[in-house]
Amino acid sequence: MSGTVYLVGAGPGAVDLLTLRAARLLGEADIVFHDALVDAETLALAPRAEKIAVGKRCGKHSTAQRFISKRLVDAAKKHRVVVRLKGGDPMLFGRAQEEIAALGAAGIRYEVVPGVTAALAAAAELSVSLTRRGLSRSVVFATPRIGERESLSSWVNAVRSADTAALYMAAGDAEAVKRELIAAGVSPETPVALAENVSLPGARVEAGVLDELPELAQRRGGGPALVLLGEVWRELAQKIGVSPELLAQTA
Amino acid sequence: MSGTVYLVGAGPGAVDLLTLRAARLLGEADIVFHDALVDAETLALAPRAEKIAVGKRCGKHSTAQRFISKRLVDAAKKHRVVVRLKGGDPMLFGRAQEEIAALGAAGIRYEVVPGVTAALAAAAELSVSLTRRGLSRSVVFATPRIGERESLSSWVNAVRSADTAALYMAAGDAEAVKRELIAAGVSPETPVALAENVSLPGARVEAGVLDELPELAQRRGGGPALVLLGEVWRELAQKIGVSPELLAQTA
Repeated sequence: MSGTVYLVGAGPGAVDLLTLRAARLLGEADIVFHDALVDAETLALAPRAEKIAVGKRCGKHSTAQRFISKRLVDAAKKHRVVVRLKGGDPMLFGRAQEEIAALGAAGIRYEVVPGVTAALAAAAELSVSLTRRGLSRSVVFATPRIGERESLSSWVNAVRSADTAALYMAAGDAEAVKRELIAAGVSPETPVALAENVSLPGARVEAGVLDELPELAQRRGGGPALVLLGEVWRELAQKIGVSPELLAQTA
Repeated sequence: MSGTVYLVGAGPGAVDLLTLRAARLLGEADIVFHDALVDAETLALAPRAEKIAVGKRCGKHSTAQRFISKRLVDAAKKHRVVVRLKGGDPMLFGRAQEEIAALGAAGIRYEVVPGVTAALAAAAELSVSLTRRGLSRSVVFATPRIGERESLSSWVNAVRSADTAALYMAAGDAEAVKRELIAAGVSPETPVALAENVSLPGARVEAGVLDELPELAQRRGGGPALVLLGEVWRELAQKIGVSPELLAQTA
Protein backbone atom coordinates (compact mmCIF):
# COMPACT_ATOMS: atom_id res chain seq x y z
CA MET A 1 0.00 0.00 0.00
CA SER A 2 1.69 3.17 -1.18
CA GLY A 3 1.15 6.78 -0.12
CA THR A 4 -0.20 9.69 -2.10
CA VAL A 5 1.88 12.28 -3.92
CA TYR A 6 0.47 15.80 -3.82
CA LEU A 7 1.71 18.17 -6.51
CA VAL A 8 1.17 21.42 -4.69
CA GLY A 9 1.38 25.01 -5.88
CA ALA A 10 3.42 27.11 -3.46
CA GLY A 11 2.11 30.37 -4.88
CA PRO A 12 4.21 33.41 -5.77
CA GLY A 13 6.36 33.45 -2.64
CA ALA A 14 4.59 35.04 0.32
CA VAL A 15 3.76 32.26 2.74
CA ASP A 16 0.20 33.51 3.34
CA LEU A 17 -0.57 33.27 -0.38
CA LEU A 18 -0.53 29.49 -0.08
CA THR A 19 -3.97 27.94 -0.13
CA LEU A 20 -5.47 26.49 3.03
CA ARG A 21 -5.26 23.06 1.38
CA ALA A 22 -1.56 23.46 0.59
CA ALA A 23 -0.84 24.53 4.17
CA ARG A 24 -2.75 21.56 5.57
CA LEU A 25 -0.91 19.09 3.34
CA LEU A 26 2.45 20.57 4.27
CA GLY A 27 1.50 20.10 7.93
CA GLU A 28 0.76 16.42 7.28
CA ALA A 29 3.69 15.78 4.94
CA ASP A 30 6.24 13.08 5.71
CA ILE A 31 8.55 14.31 2.97
CA VAL A 32 8.62 17.44 0.80
CA PHE A 33 10.43 17.78 -2.52
CA HIS A 34 10.64 21.46 -3.33
CA ASP A 35 11.92 23.83 -5.99
CA ALA A 36 14.88 26.00 -5.08
CA LEU A 37 12.64 29.08 -5.23
CA VAL A 38 10.39 27.95 -2.38
CA ASP A 39 11.46 29.91 0.68
CA ALA A 40 12.23 28.82 4.23
CA GLU A 41 9.10 30.31 5.78
CA THR A 42 6.92 28.21 3.51
CA LEU A 43 8.89 25.06 4.28
CA ALA A 44 8.45 25.77 8.00
CA LEU A 45 4.77 24.84 7.49
CA ALA A 46 6.00 21.23 7.18
CA PRO A 47 7.64 20.66 10.58
CA ARG A 48 7.43 16.86 10.45
CA ALA A 49 8.76 16.47 6.93
CA GLU A 50 12.14 15.67 5.54
CA LYS A 51 12.83 18.48 3.02
CA ILE A 52 14.63 17.81 -0.21
CA ALA A 53 15.52 20.56 -2.69
CA VAL A 54 15.23 19.32 -6.26
CA GLY A 55 15.67 22.86 -7.32
CA LYS A 56 15.13 24.49 -10.58
CA ARG A 57 16.17 28.09 -10.57
CA CYS A 58 15.16 30.61 -13.20
CA GLY A 59 14.35 27.90 -15.70
CA LYS A 60 17.58 25.97 -15.25
CA HIS A 61 17.33 22.36 -14.22
CA SER A 62 19.60 21.45 -11.38
CA THR A 63 18.04 18.01 -11.00
CA ALA A 64 17.04 16.10 -14.10
CA GLN A 65 13.27 15.81 -14.44
CA ARG A 66 13.37 12.04 -14.80
CA PHE A 67 15.29 11.70 -11.58
CA ILE A 68 12.75 13.85 -9.71
CA SER A 69 9.90 11.68 -10.99
CA LYS A 70 11.70 8.52 -9.85
CA ARG A 71 12.27 9.95 -6.38
CA LEU A 72 8.56 10.80 -6.06
CA VAL A 73 7.61 7.22 -6.95
CA ASP A 74 10.15 5.81 -4.48
CA ALA A 75 9.01 8.17 -1.71
CA ALA A 76 5.37 7.14 -2.16
CA LYS A 77 6.37 3.54 -1.47
CA LYS A 78 7.79 4.55 1.90
CA HIS A 79 5.63 7.45 3.08
CA ARG A 80 1.94 8.19 3.47
CA VAL A 81 1.99 11.89 2.48
CA VAL A 82 4.51 13.02 -0.13
CA VAL A 83 4.39 16.68 -1.20
CA ARG A 84 5.97 17.95 -4.38
CA LEU A 85 5.99 21.70 -3.85
CA LYS A 86 6.29 23.86 -6.95
CA GLY A 87 6.55 27.62 -7.17
CA GLY A 88 3.37 29.33 -8.42
CA ASP A 89 0.85 26.90 -9.88
CA PRO A 90 1.91 23.38 -10.86
CA MET A 91 -0.06 23.37 -14.12
CA LEU A 92 1.39 26.59 -15.58
CA PHE A 93 5.07 26.27 -16.52
CA GLY A 94 5.51 23.75 -13.72
CA ARG A 95 6.54 20.69 -15.73
CA ALA A 96 3.87 18.77 -13.84
CA GLN A 97 2.88 16.54 -16.74
CA GLU A 98 6.14 14.57 -16.67
CA GLU A 99 5.68 13.84 -12.97
CA ILE A 100 1.98 13.00 -13.38
CA ALA A 101 2.81 10.57 -16.18
CA ALA A 102 5.51 8.85 -14.12
CA LEU A 103 3.24 8.55 -11.07
CA GLY A 104 0.40 7.23 -13.21
CA ALA A 105 2.64 4.66 -14.88
CA ALA A 106 3.86 3.45 -11.48
CA GLY A 107 0.31 3.17 -10.15
CA ILE A 108 0.88 5.79 -7.45
CA ARG A 109 -2.06 7.89 -6.31
CA TYR A 110 -1.58 11.61 -6.87
CA GLU A 111 -3.52 14.81 -6.56
CA VAL A 112 -2.79 18.29 -7.85
CA VAL A 113 -3.40 21.34 -5.66
CA PRO A 114 -3.59 24.59 -7.64
CA GLY A 115 -1.83 27.76 -6.54
CA VAL A 116 -1.73 31.49 -7.15
CA THR A 117 0.40 32.07 -10.22
CA ALA A 118 2.94 34.90 -10.22
CA ALA A 119 1.19 37.04 -12.84
CA LEU A 120 -1.99 37.24 -10.77
CA ALA A 121 0.02 38.11 -7.67
CA ALA A 122 1.85 40.81 -9.64
CA ALA A 123 -1.45 42.26 -10.85
CA ALA A 124 -2.70 42.33 -7.25
CA GLU A 125 0.46 43.89 -5.91
CA LEU A 126 0.50 46.57 -8.61
CA SER A 127 -3.28 47.14 -8.46
CA VAL A 128 -3.53 46.64 -12.22
CA SER A 129 -6.26 44.32 -13.46
CA LEU A 130 -5.10 42.09 -16.34
CA THR A 131 -8.52 42.41 -17.93
CA ARG A 132 -10.27 45.71 -18.18
CA ARG A 133 -13.45 46.91 -19.75
CA GLY A 134 -12.81 48.35 -23.19
CA LEU A 135 -9.07 47.66 -22.98
CA SER A 136 -8.34 43.99 -22.38
CA ARG A 137 -10.47 40.92 -22.84
CA SER A 138 -7.67 38.38 -23.26
CA VAL A 139 -4.53 37.59 -21.29
CA VAL A 140 -1.80 35.27 -22.48
CA PHE A 141 0.72 33.53 -20.24
CA ALA A 142 3.72 32.48 -22.30
CA THR A 143 7.38 31.75 -22.16
CA PRO A 144 9.59 33.00 -24.98
CA ARG A 145 11.48 30.69 -27.25
CA ILE A 146 14.14 32.93 -28.69
CA GLY A 147 14.89 32.29 -32.36
CA GLU A 148 11.68 30.35 -32.98
CA ARG A 149 10.39 30.67 -36.52
CA GLU A 150 7.28 32.82 -36.56
CA SER A 151 4.10 30.82 -37.08
CA LEU A 152 0.49 30.80 -35.97
CA SER A 153 1.49 29.09 -32.74
CA SER A 154 4.79 30.87 -32.12
CA TRP A 155 5.26 32.67 -28.81
CA VAL A 156 5.49 36.06 -30.54
CA ASN A 157 2.20 35.50 -32.27
CA ALA A 158 0.52 34.41 -29.02
CA VAL A 159 1.79 37.55 -27.29
CA ARG A 160 0.89 39.83 -30.19
CA SER A 161 -2.65 38.49 -30.42
CA ALA A 162 -3.68 38.91 -26.80
CA ASP A 163 -4.51 42.24 -25.18
CA THR A 164 -2.32 41.60 -22.13
CA ALA A 165 0.68 39.29 -21.82
CA ALA A 166 2.65 37.86 -18.92
CA LEU A 167 5.98 36.36 -19.92
CA TYR A 168 7.49 33.82 -17.56
CA MET A 169 11.22 33.09 -17.60
CA ALA A 170 11.79 35.98 -19.96
CA ALA A 171 13.64 38.69 -18.03
CA GLY A 172 17.04 37.12 -18.71
CA ASP A 173 16.39 37.36 -22.44
CA ALA A 174 15.06 40.91 -22.40
CA GLU A 175 17.11 42.07 -25.39
CA ALA A 176 15.95 39.19 -27.59
CA VAL A 177 12.36 39.43 -26.32
CA LYS A 178 12.27 43.09 -27.33
CA ARG A 179 13.87 42.42 -30.72
CA GLU A 180 11.61 39.54 -31.67
CA LEU A 181 8.38 41.20 -30.56
CA ILE A 182 9.21 44.42 -32.42
CA ALA A 183 10.23 42.42 -35.51
CA ALA A 184 6.81 40.75 -35.36
CA GLY A 185 5.06 44.10 -35.44
CA VAL A 186 4.49 44.82 -31.74
CA SER A 187 4.88 48.56 -31.17
CA PRO A 188 8.13 49.59 -29.42
CA GLU A 189 5.93 51.93 -27.39
CA THR A 190 3.83 49.15 -25.90
CA PRO A 191 3.73 49.67 -22.12
CA VAL A 192 5.68 47.05 -20.15
CA ALA A 193 6.30 46.29 -16.51
CA LEU A 194 8.92 44.08 -14.98
CA ALA A 195 7.92 42.67 -11.61
CA GLU A 196 10.58 41.02 -9.48
CA ASN A 197 10.20 38.98 -6.29
CA VAL A 198 6.44 39.39 -6.48
CA SER A 199 4.70 39.24 -3.06
CA LEU A 200 8.04 39.00 -1.19
CA PRO A 201 9.77 41.66 0.94
CA GLY A 202 12.26 42.31 -1.90
CA ALA A 203 9.46 43.03 -4.38
CA ARG A 204 10.21 45.72 -6.92
CA VAL A 205 8.81 46.89 -10.21
CA GLU A 206 10.21 48.72 -13.19
CA ALA A 207 7.98 50.02 -15.94
CA GLY A 208 8.28 51.77 -19.25
CA VAL A 209 7.84 50.78 -22.87
CA LEU A 210 8.92 47.70 -24.80
CA ASP A 211 11.81 49.59 -26.38
CA GLU A 212 13.29 50.06 -22.90
CA LEU A 213 12.85 46.48 -21.73
CA PRO A 214 16.60 45.63 -21.73
CA GLU A 215 17.36 48.69 -19.57
CA LEU A 216 14.54 47.80 -17.18
CA ALA A 217 15.81 44.23 -16.96
CA GLN A 218 19.35 45.39 -16.21
CA ARG A 219 18.18 47.21 -13.13
CA ARG A 220 16.64 44.20 -11.52
CA GLY A 221 18.31 42.15 -8.81
CA GLY A 222 18.78 38.42 -9.06
CA GLY A 223 15.24 37.39 -8.14
CA PRO A 224 12.68 35.76 -10.39
CA ALA A 225 10.96 38.33 -12.57
CA LEU A 226 7.93 38.53 -14.81
CA VAL A 227 7.66 40.60 -17.97
CA LEU A 228 4.21 42.13 -18.38
CA LEU A 229 3.00 43.82 -21.56
CA GLY A 230 -0.05 45.64 -22.82
CA GLU A 231 -2.19 48.75 -22.56
CA VAL A 232 -3.35 47.94 -19.02
CA TRP A 233 0.22 48.81 -17.85
CA ARG A 234 0.21 52.32 -19.35
CA GLU A 235 -0.88 54.20 -16.24
CA LEU A 236 1.69 52.40 -14.09
CA ALA A 237 4.42 53.09 -16.65
CA GLN A 238 3.43 56.74 -16.78
CA LYS A 239 3.56 56.96 -13.00
CA ILE A 240 6.84 55.15 -12.36
CA GLY A 241 8.36 54.67 -15.80
CA VAL A 242 11.90 55.66 -16.69
CA SER A 243 10.77 57.95 -19.48
CA PRO A 244 7.29 59.29 -18.79
CA GLU A 245 7.71 61.86 -21.57
CA LEU A 246 7.93 59.04 -24.15
CA LEU A 247 4.71 57.54 -22.88
CA ALA A 248 2.99 60.89 -22.77
CA GLN A 249 3.78 61.36 -26.46
CA THR A 250 2.22 58.07 -27.42
CA ALA A 251 -0.79 58.21 -25.10
CA MET B 1 -9.95 57.94 9.55
CA SER B 2 -11.39 55.37 7.20
CA GLY B 3 -10.87 51.63 7.04
CA THR B 4 -9.26 49.51 4.37
CA VAL B 5 -11.05 47.74 1.53
CA TYR B 6 -9.59 44.36 0.59
CA LEU B 7 -10.46 43.09 -2.88
CA VAL B 8 -10.06 39.39 -2.22
CA GLY B 9 -10.04 36.42 -4.58
CA ALA B 10 -12.32 33.68 -3.29
CA GLY B 11 -10.77 31.08 -5.57
CA PRO B 12 -12.70 28.57 -7.68
CA GLY B 13 -15.20 27.50 -5.05
CA ALA B 14 -13.77 24.95 -2.60
CA VAL B 15 -13.30 26.72 0.70
CA ASP B 16 -9.82 25.27 1.25
CA LEU B 17 -8.61 26.75 -2.03
CA LEU B 18 -8.77 30.19 -0.47
CA THR B 19 -5.37 31.60 0.42
CA LEU B 20 -4.31 31.86 4.06
CA ARG B 21 -4.39 35.65 3.65
CA ALA B 22 -7.95 35.61 2.34
CA ALA B 23 -9.08 33.40 5.22
CA ARG B 24 -7.41 35.67 7.78
CA LEU B 25 -9.02 38.80 6.31
CA LEU B 26 -12.44 37.17 6.27
CA GLY B 27 -11.96 36.33 9.95
CA GLU B 28 -11.22 40.00 10.67
CA ALA B 29 -13.85 41.48 8.37
CA ASP B 30 -16.53 43.79 9.69
CA ILE B 31 -18.46 43.63 6.44
CA VAL B 32 -18.20 41.42 3.35
CA PHE B 33 -19.59 42.28 -0.08
CA HIS B 34 -19.64 39.10 -2.11
CA ASP B 35 -20.52 37.81 -5.57
CA ALA B 36 -23.52 35.52 -5.82
CA LEU B 37 -21.22 32.63 -6.74
CA VAL B 38 -19.34 32.66 -3.42
CA ASP B 39 -20.76 29.83 -1.35
CA ALA B 40 -21.96 29.63 2.23
CA GLU B 41 -19.01 27.64 3.53
CA THR B 42 -16.62 30.34 2.40
CA LEU B 43 -18.74 33.09 3.96
CA ALA B 44 -18.74 31.13 7.22
CA LEU B 45 -15.05 32.11 7.53
CA ALA B 46 -16.30 35.63 8.31
CA PRO B 47 -18.36 35.03 11.47
CA ARG B 48 -18.22 38.65 12.68
CA ALA B 49 -19.10 40.24 9.38
CA GLU B 50 -22.29 41.54 7.94
CA LYS B 51 -22.63 39.78 4.55
CA ILE B 52 -24.03 41.54 1.54
CA ALA B 53 -24.57 39.83 -1.79
CA VAL B 54 -23.87 42.20 -4.67
CA GLY B 55 -24.11 39.23 -6.91
CA LYS B 56 -23.15 38.80 -10.44
CA ARG B 57 -24.11 35.45 -11.78
CA CYS B 58 -22.77 33.96 -14.98
CA GLY B 59 -21.68 37.33 -16.29
CA LYS B 60 -24.99 39.08 -15.60
CA HIS B 61 -24.93 42.09 -13.38
CA SER B 62 -27.54 42.05 -10.70
CA THR B 63 -26.12 45.12 -8.98
CA ALA B 64 -24.78 47.95 -11.08
CA GLN B 65 -21.00 48.26 -10.84
CA ARG B 66 -21.15 51.93 -9.92
CA PHE B 67 -23.46 51.18 -7.03
CA ILE B 68 -21.11 48.46 -5.73
CA SER B 69 -18.19 50.89 -5.82
CA LYS B 70 -20.17 53.49 -3.93
CA ARG B 71 -21.13 50.99 -1.25
CA LEU B 72 -17.47 50.01 -0.76
CA VAL B 73 -16.50 53.64 -0.27
CA ASP B 74 -19.35 54.19 2.20
CA ALA B 75 -18.49 51.01 4.12
CA ALA B 76 -14.84 52.05 4.50
CA LYS B 77 -16.00 55.22 6.23
CA LYS B 78 -17.81 53.15 8.86
CA HIS B 79 -15.73 49.97 9.23
CA ARG B 80 -12.10 49.06 9.79
CA VAL B 81 -11.94 45.93 7.60
CA VAL B 82 -14.10 45.79 4.49
CA VAL B 83 -13.79 42.73 2.26
CA ARG B 84 -14.95 42.66 -1.34
CA LEU B 85 -14.94 38.95 -2.11
CA LYS B 86 -14.82 37.98 -5.79
CA GLY B 87 -14.97 34.51 -7.30
CA GLY B 88 -11.62 33.28 -8.66
CA ASP B 89 -9.00 36.00 -8.87
CA PRO B 90 -10.02 39.68 -8.72
CA MET B 91 -7.66 40.75 -11.55
CA LEU B 92 -8.84 38.25 -14.16
CA PHE B 93 -12.39 38.94 -15.37
CA GLY B 94 -13.24 40.37 -11.94
CA ARG B 95 -14.06 43.96 -12.91
CA ALA B 96 -11.68 45.06 -10.18
CA GLN B 97 -10.41 48.14 -12.00
CA GLU B 98 -13.69 50.01 -11.66
CA GLU B 99 -13.71 49.42 -7.90
CA ILE B 100 -10.01 50.29 -7.55
CA ALA B 101 -10.54 53.53 -9.44
CA ALA B 102 -13.50 54.50 -7.25
CA LEU B 103 -11.62 53.71 -4.03
CA GLY B 104 -8.56 55.61 -5.23
CA ALA B 105 -10.66 58.64 -6.19
CA ALA B 106 -12.29 58.65 -2.76
CA GLY B 107 -8.94 58.39 -0.99
CA ILE B 108 -9.80 55.02 0.56
CA ARG B 109 -6.95 52.60 1.25
CA TYR B 110 -7.28 49.30 -0.58
CA GLU B 111 -5.32 46.14 -1.14
CA VAL B 112 -5.83 43.32 -3.63
CA VAL B 113 -5.42 39.70 -2.55
CA PRO B 114 -4.93 37.32 -5.47
CA GLY B 115 -6.73 34.00 -5.74
CA VAL B 116 -6.68 30.71 -7.60
CA THR B 117 -8.40 31.24 -10.91
CA ALA B 118 -10.87 28.65 -12.19
CA ALA B 119 -8.77 27.49 -15.14
CA LEU B 120 -5.86 26.52 -12.90
CA ALA B 121 -8.21 24.70 -10.55
CA ALA B 122 -9.73 22.87 -13.53
CA ALA B 123 -6.28 21.85 -14.75
CA ALA B 124 -5.46 20.54 -11.26
CA GLU B 125 -8.73 18.67 -10.93
CA LEU B 126 -8.41 17.08 -14.36
CA SER B 127 -4.65 16.43 -13.97
CA VAL B 128 -3.96 18.16 -17.27
CA SER B 129 -1.16 20.70 -17.31
CA LEU B 130 -2.00 23.80 -19.36
CA THR B 131 1.60 23.97 -20.55
CA ARG B 132 3.43 20.92 -21.69
CA ARG B 133 6.81 20.29 -23.18
CA GLY B 134 6.63 20.10 -26.96
CA LEU B 135 2.87 20.74 -26.97
CA SER B 136 1.99 24.00 -25.26
CA ARG B 137 4.08 27.02 -24.36
CA SER B 138 1.31 29.60 -24.24
CA VAL B 139 -2.06 29.73 -22.52
CA VAL B 140 -4.68 32.38 -23.16
CA PHE B 141 -7.48 33.32 -20.79
CA ALA B 142 -10.22 35.06 -22.71
CA THR B 143 -13.89 35.78 -22.78
CA PRO B 144 -15.72 35.62 -26.08
CA ARG B 145 -17.37 38.60 -27.67
CA ILE B 146 -19.78 37.05 -30.08
CA GLY B 147 -20.09 38.92 -33.36
CA GLU B 148 -16.87 40.90 -32.90
CA ARG B 149 -15.15 41.77 -36.15
CA GLU B 150 -12.01 39.70 -36.56
CA SER B 151 -8.84 41.68 -35.94
CA LEU B 152 -5.40 41.24 -34.48
CA SER B 153 -6.81 41.75 -31.01
CA SER B 154 -10.13 39.95 -31.44
CA TRP B 155 -10.97 37.14 -29.03
CA VAL B 156 -10.92 34.55 -31.83
CA ASN B 157 -7.45 35.59 -32.85
CA ALA B 158 -6.19 35.47 -29.26
CA VAL B 159 -7.59 31.95 -28.87
CA ARG B 160 -6.32 30.78 -32.24
CA SER B 161 -2.80 32.05 -31.57
CA ALA B 162 -2.20 30.39 -28.19
CA ASP B 163 -1.50 26.70 -27.73
CA THR B 164 -4.06 26.30 -24.93
CA ALA B 165 -7.13 28.42 -24.22
CA ALA B 166 -9.45 28.83 -21.27
CA LEU B 167 -12.67 30.66 -22.08
CA TYR B 168 -14.51 32.26 -19.21
CA MET B 169 -18.23 33.06 -19.43
CA ALA B 170 -18.45 31.14 -22.69
CA ALA B 171 -20.46 27.98 -22.05
CA GLY B 172 -23.78 29.75 -22.55
CA ASP B 173 -22.68 30.80 -26.04
CA ALA B 174 -21.29 27.40 -27.05
CA GLU B 175 -22.94 27.40 -30.49
CA ALA B 176 -21.57 30.82 -31.42
CA VAL B 177 -18.16 30.10 -29.89
CA LYS B 178 -17.88 27.00 -32.06
CA ARG B 179 -19.07 28.80 -35.16
CA GLU B 180 -16.77 31.80 -34.80
CA LEU B 181 -13.67 29.77 -33.95
CA ILE B 182 -14.20 27.42 -36.89
CA ALA B 183 -14.88 30.36 -39.20
CA ALA B 184 -11.52 31.81 -38.09
CA GLY B 185 -9.72 28.64 -39.08
CA VAL B 186 -9.59 26.70 -35.81
CA SER B 187 -9.96 23.01 -36.59
CA PRO B 188 -13.38 21.52 -35.72
CA GLU B 189 -11.40 18.56 -34.36
CA THR B 190 -9.54 20.63 -31.76
CA PRO B 191 -9.90 18.86 -28.41
CA VAL B 192 -12.14 20.67 -25.92
CA ALA B 193 -13.21 20.17 -22.34
CA LEU B 194 -16.02 21.78 -20.47
CA ALA B 195 -15.48 21.93 -16.73
CA GLU B 196 -18.41 22.81 -14.51
CA ASN B 197 -18.46 23.63 -10.79
CA VAL B 198 -14.69 23.23 -10.64
CA SER B 199 -13.41 22.16 -7.20
CA LEU B 200 -16.93 21.82 -5.77
CA PRO B 201 -18.85 18.65 -4.90
CA GLY B 202 -20.97 19.03 -8.07
CA ALA B 203 -17.88 19.16 -10.29
CA ARG B 204 -18.25 17.52 -13.68
CA VAL B 205 -16.45 17.51 -16.96
CA GLU B 206 -17.44 16.85 -20.54
CA ALA B 207 -14.86 16.51 -23.28
CA GLY B 208 -14.71 15.99 -27.00
CA VAL B 209 -13.87 18.15 -29.98
CA LEU B 210 -14.78 21.73 -30.87
CA ASP B 211 -17.41 20.54 -33.33
CA GLU B 212 -19.28 18.94 -30.43
CA LEU B 213 -19.07 21.91 -28.06
CA PRO B 214 -22.80 22.78 -28.23
CA GLU B 215 -23.74 19.18 -27.34
CA LEU B 216 -21.26 19.16 -24.46
CA ALA B 217 -22.64 22.45 -23.20
CA GLN B 218 -26.21 21.17 -23.34
CA ARG B 219 -25.37 18.37 -20.93
CA ARG B 220 -24.11 20.65 -18.22
CA GLY B 221 -26.15 21.69 -15.19
CA GLY B 222 -26.67 25.29 -14.19
CA GLY B 223 -23.26 25.85 -12.58
CA PRO B 224 -20.48 28.10 -13.81
CA ALA B 225 -18.47 26.40 -16.51
CA LEU B 226 -15.19 26.91 -18.30
CA VAL B 227 -14.50 26.03 -21.92
CA LEU B 228 -10.97 24.66 -22.41
CA LEU B 229 -9.37 24.14 -25.81
CA GLY B 230 -6.16 22.79 -27.24
CA GLU B 231 -4.00 19.74 -27.79
CA VAL B 232 -3.29 19.26 -24.08
CA TRP B 233 -6.94 18.13 -23.72
CA ARG B 234 -6.69 15.35 -26.30
CA GLU B 235 -5.94 12.48 -23.91
CA LEU B 236 -8.78 13.50 -21.61
CA ALA B 237 -11.16 13.78 -24.54
CA GLN B 238 -10.11 10.38 -25.80
CA LYS B 239 -10.69 8.87 -22.38
CA ILE B 240 -14.05 10.43 -21.55
CA GLY B 241 -15.13 12.10 -24.79
CA VAL B 242 -18.50 11.55 -26.38
CA SER B 243 -17.00 10.33 -29.65
CA PRO B 244 -13.60 8.73 -29.05
CA GLU B 245 -13.64 7.34 -32.61
CA LEU B 246 -13.57 10.87 -34.04
CA LEU B 247 -10.58 11.79 -31.93
CA ALA B 248 -8.79 8.55 -32.80
CA GLN B 249 -9.11 9.44 -36.48
CA THR B 250 -7.50 12.82 -36.00
CA ALA B 251 -4.76 11.78 -33.54
